[in-house]
Amino acid sequence: MLDTDRTLQIVLELSGTFVFGLNGALTAMEAENLDLVGVVVLAVLTALGGGIVRDVLIGFLPPSALRDWRYLTVAGGAGVIAFVARRLWVRVRVRRLMTVFDAAGLALFCVTGTTVAFVAHLGPFQSAVLGTITAVGGGTIRDVVIRRVPTVLSSGLYAVPAACGAALTALALDFHFYDGYLAVTAALLCFAIRMIGVTFNLNLPTSHPHS
Amino acid sequence: MLDTDRTLQIVLELSGTFVFGLNGALTAMEAENLDLVGVVVLAVLTALGGGIVRDVLIGFLPPSALRDWRYLTVAGGAGVIAFVARRLWVRVRVRRLMTVFDAAGLALFCVTGTTVAFVAHLGPFQSAVLGTITAVGGGTIRDVVIRRVPTVLSSGLYAVPAACGAALTALALDFHFYDGYLAVTAALLCFAIRMIGVTFNLNLPTSHPHS
Amino acid sequence: MLDTDRTLQIVLELSGTFVFGLNGALTAMEAENLDLVGVVVLAVLTALGGGIVRDVLIGFLPPSALRDWRYLTVAGGAGVIAFVARRLWVRVRVRRLMTVFDAAGLALFCVTGTTVAFVAHLGPFQSAVLGTITAVGGGTIRDVVIRRVPTVLSSGLYAVPAACGAALTALALDFHFYDGYLAVTAALLCFAIRMIGVTFNLNLPTSHPHS
Repeated sequence: MLDTDRTLQIVLELSGTFVFGLNGALTAMEAENLDLVGVVVLAVLTALGGGIVRDVLIGFLPPSALRDWRYLTVAGGAGVIAFVARRLWVRVRVRRLMTVFDAAGLALFCVTGTTVAFVAHLGPFQSAVLGTITAVGGGTIRDVVIRRVPTVLSSGLYAVPAACGAALTALALDFHFYDGYLAVTAALLCFAIRMIGVTFNLNLPTSHPHS
Repeated sequence: MLDTDRTLQIVLELSGTFVFGLNGALTAMEAENLDLVGVVVLAVLTALGGGIVRDVLIGFLPPSALRDWRYLTVAGGAGVIAFVARRLWVRVRVRRLMTVFDAAGLALFCVTGTTVAFVAHLGPFQSAVLGTITAVGGGTIRDVVIRRVPTVLSSGLYAVPAACGAALTALALDFHFYDGYLAVTAALLCFAIRMIGVTFNLNLPTSHPHS
Repeated sequence: MLDTDRTLQIVLELSGTFVFGLNGALTAMEAENLDLVGVVVLAVLTALGGGIVRDVLIGFLPPSALRDWRYLTVAGGAGVIAFVARRLWVRVRVRRLMTVFDAAGLALFCVTGTTVAFVAHLGPFQSAVLGTITAVGGGTIRDVVIRRVPTVLSSGLYAVPAACGAALTALALDFHFYDGYLAVTAALLCFAIRMIGVTFNLNLPTSHPHS
C-alpha cells in the first residue's frame, strides 16, 4: 500500500474505534448501572474486540490495539466522553444514536478488517470472512458480557451488510482497483444496508415464523 | 503421518464439523427465534469454535478453519440444511437427535484435536488436554452465546468421555500404535460413555446433593 | 532476570493460580449445583484464563499454562480441594473468604502479568495493560460462564487496584529497580486498595446515581 492508503486505513480504523467506543459506552449505561471504569471497559471491549480477534486469527501478535497507543486512547476516550456527557444523552434519541454509531463502526471495520487480512497475505475469501468478523466481533463481545442475545444472531441484517462491504473490499483488493473512493463506497454500502434494515425493521425469515 | 492417515484425519474432522454444525443450528432454533443468518452463525461457532481455540493455543495461525475453505463450507452448509429442513425436525425426536449429534461431534473432535496437537510437537499430556478442549470448546461457546450454563460445567459426563477418548489417542500416538482402527475405537469409547451417561441420566456427585 | 527472580516469579504465579482456583471453585458451588468436573473446570478457567489471554496477546504460544504441567495441576488441585472440603465452607464466612482469595489472585497476577509482558519486550505502558488484563481476565471469564455481570464492569475498584499494582511494577521494571521487595509491595498495594474498596463498600460515581 502507498502512504496515502496507510493514512486512509488509520483514519478509518480510529473513526471506527471511536464510534464503536461511544456505542459500547451508551449500551453499557442503558443496560446496567455502571461506574466510570465499567463504562470505559465496555467501550474498549466493543471498540477493540473485533480487531483483536482478527489479529489473533491472522497471527499478528501483539495485536494492533496493543502496539499502537492511539487505539486504547481513542476507545477509552470515547468511553469517558460518553460517561461525562451522560446527562446530555437523555435529551437526544439515544437508541437511534446508538444504532447509527453501531452501523458506522460496522461499516468502517468491515473495510479495514478485510484490508488488514489481505495485506497479511490471506486469500480474498478469507479476507472477507475476517473483515466480517472484525466488524461484528466487538458488538458480539459487548452483548455476551452484558448478557444479551448477540445482535449477530438475532438480526440477519447485521452480519449481511458487513459481509457485503467486506466482499466488495476483497474483490477490489484482489483485482487491484482498491483506493480511497472504493473504501468509502464499501463502507457506505454496508452502512446503507444496515440502516435500511433497522429503519424499516426488515427481517429475514425466522425459524418459528408464526410464534 | 502417512497419506492415508491424513485422509482419515480430514474425514473425521469434516464429519465432526458437520454433526456439530447440525447440533448448533438445532440448539439455536430451540433456544431463540433466529433467522437463517443467526442459525448459520451459531452452526459455524459450534462447529469451528473448538478447533479455532486449539489452533490459537498451539500457535497454528491462521487456524485450519480459515486456511481450508471446506471447514466453513461444511459448517455453514449444516446450518443451512438444518434451517431449510426445520419443519421436518418437529416430526422426529429433536432433543434426542441433538444429543446424538453432540456426542458424535465430541467423539470425533477429541480424537482429531489430540492428533493435531501431537503432530505440532506437544507432549502426550498436553495433547490430550488440547483434544479435550477441541471437543468441548465449540459446545461451550454455543452455550455462552445463547446464555445457557455450559454443558461442560453442568454435566460431568461431558468432559470425562472427551478426556477418555483424548487420553487413549494420546497414549496410542506416544507408543506408536495409532492407526485408523485405534482412532475409530477412541471415538466410539467417547461416544459410548457420553450416550450411556445421557441415556441413564448418570451424574457425578454434586456440590449440593440434597438441594 | 536472575535465577532468584525466576523463582520468585514462579512462586507468585502458582500462588495466584491456587487462590484464583479456590475462588473459582467456591463461586461455582455458590452459583450453580455443579459436580466435581464442573467445579474443577471453573477453577481452571478462573485460575488460568487471565494468563492464557495474556500469552495469546503477546504471541507466546503454547501458553505457559500448557507448557508447564504445574499450572494445570495447581489449578485443578485447588478445585478438587474446594469440592472435597465443601462441607467445611458452610461453617466459615465463605463470601468473605472468596473475596480475599479473589483480591489475592488479583494482586499476584497484576505483578506477574506485567513482568511476563515486559520480559517479552513490550513497552512499560503495554506491559501494565497486559498485567491488568492478566489480573482481571480469569474472573471475567468465570463471571461470563456462570452468567453474572463481570465484576470488572460492575465494580470500579476491581480494575483500578490491578492497574495500580501493574503500573508500579512496570515503572520499576522500566527504571531498573524491580526486585522481590518491589514485587511484594506492588502486590500488597493492589490487595490493600481492593480490600479497602470491598470492606467500606466504596464505589466510583455511577451512570444512574439516583436510580
